[in-house]
Amino acid sequence: MTDHPPPLLDQLASASLTDDGPCSSIKKAQFSDRVLIRDIVTRKDGGASLAGRHVRIGGWVKTGREQGRGTFAFLEINDGSCPANLQVIVDASVSDLSPLVSTGTCVSVEGLLKVPPEGTKQKIELRVEKVLHVGTVDPAKYPIPKTKLTLEFLRDVLHLRSRTNTISAVARIRNALAFATHSFFQEHGFLYVHTPIITTSDCEGAGEMFQVTTLINDAEKLEKDLIKNPPPSEADIEAAKLLVKETGEAVAQLKVNKASKADITASVAELTKAKENFSKLEERSKLKPGIPKKDGKIDYSQDFFARQAFLTVSGQLQVETYACALSSVYTFGPTFRAEHSHTSRHLAEFWMVEPELAFADIQDDMNCAEAYVKYMCQWLLDKCLDDMQFMAKNYDKGCIDRLNLVASTPFVRITYMEAVELLLDAVKGGKKFENKVEWGIDLASEHERYLTEVKFQKPVIVYNYPKDIKAFYMKVNDDKKTVAAMDILVPKVGELIGGSQREEQYEVLRERILEMGLPLEPYEWYLDLRRYGTVKHSGFGLGFERMILFATGIDNIRDVIPFPRYPGRADL
Amino acid sequence: MTDHPPPLLDQLASASLTDDGPCSSIKKAQFSDRVLIRDIVTRKDGGASLAGRHVRIGGWVKTGREQGRGTFAFLEINDGSCPANLQVIVDASVSDLSPLVSTGTCVSVEGLLKVPPEGTKQKIELRVEKVLHVGTVDPAKYPIPKTKLTLEFLRDVLHLRSRTNTISAVARIRNALAFATHSFFQEHGFLYVHTPIITTSDCEGAGEMFQVTTLINDAEKLEKDLIKNPPPSEADIEAAKLLVKETGEAVAQLKVNKASKADITASVAELTKAKENFSKLEERSKLKPGIPKKDGKIDYSQDFFARQAFLTVSGQLQVETYACALSSVYTFGPTFRAEHSHTSRHLAEFWMVEPELAFADIQDDMNCAEAYVKYMCQWLLDKCLDDMQFMAKNYDKGCIDRLNLVASTPFVRITYMEAVELLLDAVKGGKKFENKVEWGIDLASEHERYLTEVKFQKPVIVYNYPKDIKAFYMKVNDDKKTVAAMDILVPKVGELIGGSQREEQYEVLRERILEMGLPLEPYEWYLDLRRYGTVKHSGFGLGFERMILFATGIDNIRDVIPFPRYPGRADL
Repeated sequence: MTDHPPPLLDQLASASLTDDGPCSSIKKAQFSDRVLIRDIVTRKDGGASLAGRHVRIGGWVKTGREQGRGTFAFLEINDGSCPANLQVIVDASVSDLSPLVSTGTCVSVEGLLKVPPEGTKQKIELRVEKVLHVGTVDPAKYPIPKTKLTLEFLRDVLHLRSRTNTISAVARIRNALAFATHSFFQEHGFLYVHTPIITTSDCEGAGEMFQVTTLINDAEKLEKDLIKNPPPSEADIEAAKLLVKETGEAVAQLKVNKASKADITASVAELTKAKENFSKLEERSKLKPGIPKKDGKIDYSQDFFARQAFLTVSGQLQVETYACALSSVYTFGPTFRAEHSHTSRHLAEFWMVEPELAFADIQDDMNCAEAYVKYMCQWLLDKCLDDMQFMAKNYDKGCIDRLNLVASTPFVRITYMEAVELLLDAVKGGKKFENKVEWGIDLASEHERYLTEVKFQKPVIVYNYPKDIKAFYMKVNDDKKTVAAMDILVPKVGELIGGSQREEQYEVLRERILEMGLPLEPYEWYLDLRRYGTVKHSGFGLGFERMILFATGIDNIRDVIPFPRYPGRADL
Repeated sequence: MTDHPPPLLDQLASASLTDDGPCSSIKKAQFSDRVLIRDIVTRKDGGASLAGRHVRIGGWVKTGREQGRGTFAFLEINDGSCPANLQVIVDASVSDLSPLVSTGTCVSVEGLLKVPPEGTKQKIELRVEKVLHVGTVDPAKYPIPKTKLTLEFLRDVLHLRSRTNTISAVARIRNALAFATHSFFQEHGFLYVHTPIITTSDCEGAGEMFQVTTLINDAEKLEKDLIKNPPPSEADIEAAKLLVKETGEAVAQLKVNKASKADITASVAELTKAKENFSKLEERSKLKPGIPKKDGKIDYSQDFFARQAFLTVSGQLQVETYACALSSVYTFGPTFRAEHSHTSRHLAEFWMVEPELAFADIQDDMNCAEAYVKYMCQWLLDKCLDDMQFMAKNYDKGCIDRLNLVASTPFVRITYMEAVELLLDAVKGGKKFENKVEWGIDLASEHERYLTEVKFQKPVIVYNYPKDIKAFYMKVNDDKKTVAAMDILVPKVGELIGGSQREEQYEVLRERILEMGLPLEPYEWYLDLRRYGTVKHSGFGLGFERMILFATGIDNIRDVIPFPRYPGRADL
């Protein structure tokens, strides 16, 4: 004990630790017997006012080294609660030092917070008095040693890459954007709706869907079973049939002979058994290995859902059923594309945010989308600035400026027609595009990025697209040539959001489905929303990983989702 | 205009509407030109202080009737923002009344809020001055007419059932519980991690998984293509081979004859073409219809992910990789079981909440789980009381009391051993169970419900289960017979939460995997978490739909998820 004044009472501090310094109060984690490093080092004073406090912390060694000829060790400890580390000093008298210093080692320690000697960058450090746990690392075998590793390399060690500075910063930013998303929509009275992952509807009619099935598994089980217990031969079946006949005749004979009741009963029982055996054999003889077929096609009536089922490509159509009853709703869930796409912008599994608003037109839709994107940017500036500074330093100098710009500047809004004219002006001015510019084209990525990065240098909303390049459900404008669709283009990633007012008129929607060459039957439920109590409504979709790319400046989408899935890879 | 004082300035009110009453301010929806019915009728005064205000509202007719020999109509309008309706009165001079009164009709109207005549239960009603939109309903065809419909019937009209009072109340409660979940974990510093939906790991080793594949689709495409363009015959291939030989000889001959460069070039070009054609034909001749096989087994190297892939049954193992780097994390996402289970408690697709805490033992885990469940109950009481009152009135009288009880009472905590003793005591006391009670059994539903509903009449945490009935990853206790597992049992549903401290010792975990007869290879990445920087950690899983059943008192799990998936059904 020291000669300091008595400790301050602090209910939040661990009861098991002695508070014996003239210092600030400190928050203990609630379901873990320790203090988060964030609650020490991210104070305005860098934690200096906590000097004199005893704390227990836990985390992983980022860098460690023995000093003073092995008399003590410096450890930089990170526990994931913030990007900053806590400097920890362990004396050789407290613990064997060599197991502590390898990168990746897990430690739980107790000690005294002290102000370091002048001239060091830390404002506080921990002098360890007791080492409670060491999870060692053999540096010769550790797959992610301290050396600088490329993001590409880290994709091969998905289970450990969250221990790196970059992937952990991305995890905190991703978490912040997810909660910002829920907070924004909840504040505005939207209801979160869980649209189905397994679906029997194909929203876009695009067909690039993963199939969900138990048929293959069932067929393999059957195959194994048939090898173990081969199906009966024809002779077996004939023999069983004969036995039925014979026992049947025996029963008849006994009856004719007025045999005893007991004898007849026994004989009948034998007949029943023979019949059962025969029908079982006959049933089994029909079993065929392989996936069940009917009329040359796969017999999906035998699949788990009694029909062909897929992974969803979008929750939009389904969430519309809730918007057309509860007004303002949104979905936020995983979506899937079975495209053999190897770009840095596509994943086979990714997360989408899809709000849907009743009593809302395309203008309301744009207002909502713009407010949402601004809200997310401001949220990161308010709550994740330290992680954003890490990104600015290591990946994209301009990322914080970009968030500020987007949060504070009204988005440009131009029609598709105006966008094409601006692109044509650019071509006249000498700008070269790989894809031809003319009315009717789907804007290519180079066009989108020219508009948002060069022409306006801020987010741009393009709306009223030619109907022939857009989906069947989008509302046809009065000109009959365009639809009330809108895309939000942002610097760095291009298209971030796509949305539209939905066609709410039954007849028009029906015509559009037929015009697109789609069958009516699968869309009857969707048409019902227009048949009964139809309402003007609009919505949009935001690719969640695109938003993270936009925020962080990371280049490859595989590095901003914890477990990326793409052609040839689905680790873990 | 009236002789009222000038309107209050109210930035939130719609600019297009005149504020001309001596009345309270009213909030306009931000991305929709209307006022939410919630913001009128759920005020403390029932909306009375809004009398005199002009508002625009939108919603669907719950009940409507013409009155006064067709001179006016009463409509009860609901917009999903709350369970209560707004009473709306339309004069025949304002609009044709007959298209308005059918249940399910969508209307958008403007009018004046008035205090109704004394003796009516409403505190405010809307006198319509202008009808802006009518989405009609033909009552003869409407699939969900006003009559009382069973929940079972509604499962056949998933796309419209959210228009009913029950399903919309469930949607609001579900939304509230989802946001409560995020709020709880965010407040406690947990990071939300998106674990993968498509996985190549089987968490429980149970094997009841849906397969995700593109092989069937690819095989069907190939089959169609082969019918359209039949593979080459052997004669075709022989002919192509011969052509290669002949053109090759021709080239050689030209060279021997020292022909012109142009002639030789032309001849070589022909040879190249012939070779290409031959290899293309040969390639095509190898194409076989059906799912690709290799050594008698399905060749998954040709599947999308180049290996067999499934839908996840739990995100736990994957989220542990983040807990062992970032300390406190949680996942909240869809999970899947391909079980042919037709009970009222099972779905093929359901949502799970799975927190994982580093530096936390089984006690921390129980503390976290208890705090989380209490938080959700309190949240519903604070934010969803009107919907809960609907549930209490229509489904489960005791549901609000139950929430109060759980929110305010400490959960009972007993060991498995104690639980078995209590059950044996009950048996001695004359209680009959279908399943035998003895140490080593997995508690059956009847046992769980006896403990929580009869014995304690509150939530019960049972912990330290025999290791043989629990999963391989649970921490073996010092007695070597039990594991640090815990289940939370609640009245009405039985098991709500299952969790455990995880085995963090490499050697012990490895032994457990082998003991369970599981292969090591697929778990090497999971073992790596213990090989390198291992940490004490714990977690649990809450079945989100079970929580909704518990809260609402609804009996069937198919009614508390928007789009239920079960054997034979995956509508929409």
